[in-house]
Amino acid sequence: MSFNTTINKFRNIIDLKLKDIYMNGPKNMVETANFVMSAKGKRIRPILTMLSCDALGGDIEDSINVAIAIELLHNFTLVHDDIMDEDNLRHGQPTVHNKWDIGTAVLTGDSLLWLSLDMLKKIKNNREDIILHFIDAIKLVCEGQAYDKMFESKDYISILEYENMIGMKTGYMIGLCSHLGSICAGAETNIQNSMKTYGLEIGKAYQIQDDYMEIYSNEDIMQKSLKSDIELNKKTYMICLASEIDPSGLKTILESNKEPSDKIILLRDYFNDLKIKDKAIEEINNSFKKAEQILLNIDFKKDYLLELNSYLKNRRN
Amino acid sequence: MSFNTTINKFRNIIDLKLKDIYMNGPKNMVETANFVMSAKGKRIRPILTMLSCDALGGDIEDSINVAIAIELLHNFTLVHDDIMDEDNLRHGQPTVHNKWDIGTAVLTGDSLLWLSLDMLKKIKNNREDIILHFIDAIKLVCEGQAYDKMFESKDYISILEYENMIGMKTGYMIGLCSHLGSICAGAETNIQNSMKTYGLEIGKAYQIQDDYMEIYSNEDIMQKSLKSDIELNKKTYMICLASEIDPSGLKTILESNKEPSDKIILLRDYFNDLKIKDKAIEEINNSFKKAEQILLNIDFKKDYLLELNSYLKNRRN
Repeated sequence: MSFNTTINKFRNIIDLKLKDIYMNGPKNMVETANFVMSAKGKRIRPILTMLSCDALGGDIEDSINVAIAIELLHNFTLVHDDIMDEDNLRHGQPTVHNKWDIGTAVLTGDSLLWLSLDMLKKIKNNREDIILHFIDAIKLVCEGQAYDKMFESKDYISILEYENMIGMKTGYMIGLCSHLGSICAGAETNIQNSMKTYGLEIGKAYQIQDDYMEIYSNEDIMQKSLKSDIELNKKTYMICLASEIDPSGLKTILESNKEPSDKIILLRDYFNDLKIKDKAIEEINNSFKKAEQILLNIDFKKDYLLELNSYLKNRRN
Repeated sequence: MSFNTTINKFRNIIDLKLKDIYMNGPKNMVETANFVMSAKGKRIRPILTMLSCDALGGDIEDSINVAIAIELLHNFTLVHDDIMDEDNLRHGQPTVHNKWDIGTAVLTGDSLLWLSLDMLKKIKNNREDIILHFIDAIKLVCEGQAYDKMFESKDYISILEYENMIGMKTGYMIGLCSHLGSICAGAETNIQNSMKTYGLEIGKAYQIQDDYMEIYSNEDIMQKSLKSDIELNKKTYMICLASEIDPSGLKTILESNKEPSDKIILLRDYFNDLKIKDKAIEEINNSFKKAEQILLNIDFKKDYLLELNSYLKNRRN
């Protein structure tokens, strides 16, 4: 089977499982949880989990439960983060607190978290080990979100602080996929560690790509509102780099009276002129390169994972 | 050691552990999580967990981790429920969304949930079994809260629906304490089941007591705002009973233009006249009686648990 056929097949399995992930429960939770999970996401995280398990000779069936659990955990963070960031659009549809209300969104996030934990109960192999790593991931994504919020009120965040923060949110979550996929496959500890590091690199690249597209893409392609990150003074790779190189120039743009959408246009040229755009692309490519190198050093069926790297590298949303 | 000395000792252990439950993390989460956990709660849940383990000859040390995990889980629900109910006072201090903001309260609740899961990692005996039951409890308390919210928009909820709902929230959580305490002690499955049922009965009594005190107590004693439950059209044991016996009379009071505090005064006489007050006291006593009977049927060191029953039966807040 070709790479494209395989990931489409995996995505179909995932979407089918997620379609009615929550059947028997209070109507007001069932409706909202299924609303969130039936949105058309890219499903990168569960696909990476399943591909990692498969590449190491594991049983795909068992990895599906872990894959779904991670996708649910990811969506738990999205629903709660959207409340905090007052975002109104996600995956091309209204956010829960926007369509319903804040209380419903709090409860929906909570329900996605227990649904994710509930999926872990179904695991057949290495269940306890996987659950313990999963608990660490819940910790890290919550702490990452706390730093993200804390950074909004600060003018200057170093690239190191930024990298630590994304290494707890997007990075850790994507590292979790390849890591748990390898545990599903019963891989040796040193292979598990390599697979985790590989995922962390992909995750770092993925987040900087998101930061990049927020400036150089548009809302139609991204299917989420872009301006709120500017309004909230969110720290991105390019913002942190600019505040290291040219704090006063950056401040002039961010603190001007212009609309967020106009600020984005100004930032495009500004990042171009200061070579910050080039540096971001370089950093993304570096992380993909490192991730590839890790895969090349492991003796396993790595073709699809290498193709996934290219697929992610070339993504446009 | 006397019962009082024992529970004071247990409460001190718990308070000491909770004082700095969260040390290394983002300042904005550490501060709020410790603010919530350092409030002077009654600590009934962790005390019951430790007493149950002790009564069955288990090692108290191991049960402390479970006890703290349950207290954290309980507080996770309080912080998120207070957002949904727009409550401003809890344990005599401002609620998190009131003192800080909604986003911070969402994140604080999330952090209390992962802290509780993190405590479970430290368990030495029967860890996986305890974690799996804990996951079920997270499910039930979230679903119970969803029903609680759903019931606000309905005029009529039967006593059976009400009992199911509290059996998922307060009931299940208190049942979890005696249940997991017995697993900590390595009790046989039939004893575990009895201990769970015992806790469920105590939990039911405890919730109806709360409902009762909301009408017949005052805010100074309860250290939480009472009027919001009336404002939100929350379903309590007495409200459900009244809506079965005398729906139109109840509606007249609840839908009048009076202030919530005046409605409480009207409800006092109304519940008196319809013997609903007596029926609530009878129901509370029945559940404590059933709980006691379960304890008497188990062959173990039950003195402290029987004394805990009396202590809870006579509580005034």
